Amino acid sequence: MLEAPLYDCHRLHELAAEIILNVRELSAAGWTPATSSNFSCRLDDHHVAITVSGRDKGHLTEADIMVVDFDGKAVGSSYRPSAETPLHTHLYRRFVGIGCVLHTHSLTQTVASRLYADAGHVHLDSYELLKAFAGNSTHNMAIDVPVVSNTQDMPALAAQLDTLLDEQCMWGYLIEGHGLYAWGRDMIEARRHIEAFDFLLRCELELRRLK
Amino acid sequence: MLEAPLYDCHRLHELAAEIILNVRELSAAGWTPATSSNFSCRLDDHHVAITVSGRDKGHLTEADIMVVDFDGKAVGSSYRPSAETPLHTHLYRRFVGIGCVLHTHSLTQTVASRLYADAGHVHLDSYELLKAFAGNSTHNMAIDVPVVSNTQDMPALAAQLDTLLDEQCMWGYLIEGHGLYAWGRDMIEARRHIEAFDFLLRCELELRRLK
Amino acid sequence: MLEAPLYDCHRLHELAAEIILNVRELSAAGWTPATSSNFSCRLDDHHVAITVSGRDKGHLTEADIMVVDFDGKAVGSSYRPSAETPLHTHLYRRFVGIGCVLHTHSLTQTVASRLYADAGHVHLDSYELLKAFAGNSTHNMAIDVPVVSNTQDMPALAAQLDTLLDEQCMWGYLIEGHGLYAWGRDMIEARRHIEAFDFLLRCELELRRLK
Amino acid sequence: MLEAPLYDCHRLHELAAEIILNVRELSAAGWTPATSSNFSCRLDDHHVAITVSGRDKGHLTEADIMVVDFDGKAVGSSYRPSAETPLHTHLYRRFVGIGCVLHTHSLTQTVASRLYADAGHVHLDSYELLKAFAGNSTHNMAIDVPVVSNTQDMPALAAQLDTLLDEQCMWGYLIEGHGLYAWGRDMIEARRHIEAFDFLLRCELELRRLK
Repeated sequence: MLEAPLYDCHRLHELAAEIILNVRELSAAGWTPATSSNFSCRLDDHHVAITVSGRDKGHLTEADIMVVDFDGKAVGSSYRPSAETPLHTHLYRRFVGIGCVLHTHSLTQTVASRLYADAGHVHLDSYELLKAFAGNSTHNMAIDVPVVSNTQDMPALAAQLDTLLDEQCMWGYLIEGHGLYAWGRDMIEARRHIEAFDFLLRCELELRRLK
Repeated sequence: MLEAPLYDCHRLHELAAEIILNVRELSAAGWTPATSSNFSCRLDDHHVAITVSGRDKGHLTEADIMVVDFDGKAVGSSYRPSAETPLHTHLYRRFVGIGCVLHTHSLTQTVASRLYADAGHVHLDSYELLKAFAGNSTHNMAIDVPVVSNTQDMPALAAQLDTLLDEQCMWGYLIEGHGLYAWGRDMIEARRHIEAFDFLLRCELELRRLK
Repeated sequence: MLEAPLYDCHRLHELAAEIILNVRELSAAGWTPATSSNFSCRLDDHHVAITVSGRDKGHLTEADIMVVDFDGKAVGSSYRPSAETPLHTHLYRRFVGIGCVLHTHSLTQTVASRLYADAGHVHLDSYELLKAFAGNSTHNMAIDVPVVSNTQDMPALAAQLDTLLDEQCMWGYLIEGHGLYAWGRDMIEARRHIEAFDFLLRCELELRRLK
Repeated sequence: MLEAPLYDCHRLHELAAEIILNVRELSAAGWTPATSSNFSCRLDDHHVAITVSGRDKGHLTEADIMVVDFDGKAVGSSYRPSAETPLHTHLYRRFVGIGCVLHTHSLTQTVASRLYADAGHVHLDSYELLKAFAGNSTHNMAIDVPVVSNTQDMPALAAQLDTLLDEQCMWGYLIEGHGLYAWGRDMIEARRHIEAFDFLLRCELELRRLK
């Protein structure tokens, strides 16, 4: 019996470079404190390139990127993938159009996730930057960013996420006291989405302070 | 019948370099989240150099700068100019003395534009930095920065702007939930104006929090 | 009679490089204003590599790192160690497992230390980032970060610290109006701890503002 | 009749390099918005090296540093010195021990200067960082940072300053709606003082928000 098909090493090399460059910028912005956060790209229909657990996200090298299959198991590596790997692979399995998943812990994301946990979502309304989300061409609309409860039980978290995805088209969600997940068809789109989420959450917190 | 006169390629090259350098700095300050914002310089009496729509403003290259005529139509390029191009060309057409228009989306600009939308303007009073605006030599004065309603209908936005320009000399205005437009006779002056606007708006928000 | 055993110069060289690199990053984050703050690593069972008093922490070179013994006395150097050296050596003497002590003065640390001085501690609860502290594997817990009174009397400060260490396992504490001490088995762990403390203190201050 | 003695060109070259390096860092911190702020060093008993008016402080070169005499008149240069030059030369004339004067416009400085204008000073009390000011060895003290009224009449501003200097030893003061002046025996000390002022003013504003 044969193993799962091997992945394309050249493609992994390209994706690793893209992850390293983008994560360095997110880290410089202070969104990955204390070695937290994890990042991945779809490698092919069976594999994901993802950051190794516990590495300093400000100084990633190619050795900090590993391959896992869609069950979150390490492929060709003895490193331990992040405990949150199932929250990445779950998205790649469910949506063939998702090519990149970014998870960060900015101050704004953590604070907003606690402040809006009881409401269950953050309402974003009438911002020009809502046009940054794929499929949207006007500021004249609203989205609710879900806030789910935190748990170390990953299947339970994935189940919460599944319920949300059954109900709506969405590009990201908050976990209470924890941070933000955002995604897109590739790194460029996922990066645009995560920057838009963080910016709009900051606007909401500022307006709450000032009103 | 001949086409409109061609532009000076060497001058375009110079302006592109100036735009790239300055936008990189504005982007590093966090004023262009999620590929938003757009920037232009007057190329000659018929043409404008402007950023191509949707590019990452933190990593602009010369290929991200295109030429449009004063009607906002692409010249010698198949790229799509920003939907907001008419807000740039409108200013170049109306004032021969305007050489540069900068449009950004900082947190402060977005938050202030929502907070002061009902009032219709932000009042700035007695700051030394008011001297940064061309033609002003004392802190002992005041300006009102207009806040106009947001819309995806550019002619409607340009008409709002025209009404404002009929009434007063001004170096910039806010669009609600969106961001700031600022301009000057060249990049250096426009840059000084946009920095002064953002700084003074931040002061106002801080004072509002603290009083 | 022989002097205390000499230290390993090669090891000092390595530790100095590690201190310089990490302190430059902490300084760039604004955590060492006005030449404040000090940093050390265990060199061996008798010696500590520590920053010389009063140097600009943003531009450290190897000449800004000196050796002291566990009594805080300079070894092979005429430089003056920081007045707070006893707060470093005290930890190395008491816990053989501590390899690095970092002391910074960020805005957040200073403000939190004043705001929670009367309470005597800052309570941190249910944050995912609590997992950044060694020995902890869940967000579902709490820690109290002690706040001790400031004094220029180092033995008195060390005595306050001893009382705290008798009562609990801890990775850091605040001094009122002053800053944060944090430590770990090596630079990597101490750095992770200090970033986690600062991030969680910022979250607490933000939530206090917003609630 | 001979002119005033010429200055030492080599010393000017050294001081210019020191000013350029330090101002670039202050500018990167956002303390010199919109080409504001000015900076000087004592060149000798008759001359001062000072930044030319209106230059972008983030990109200073040696051509942006000029020489003035103690009356604020340009020496060997057709550039216009800053209108605030008398506030620098006044200090060099009065105190032979002052070697460097730094004037910046950070958000914190501007906001604090307005908020505490009626009180006439900002009270700083019991901070460890008070030890950053020359001559001070304990946190267990207080200083009042004066806030003077703004005016474009420099002799009037200098007279306000003289009255303050008659009453107390001080290392800096705020001008309402404007910014901060700080000084020291050389660039290193003046830089330490200005960083300490800005940090402590930020602490005060934060505590005011949070209490």
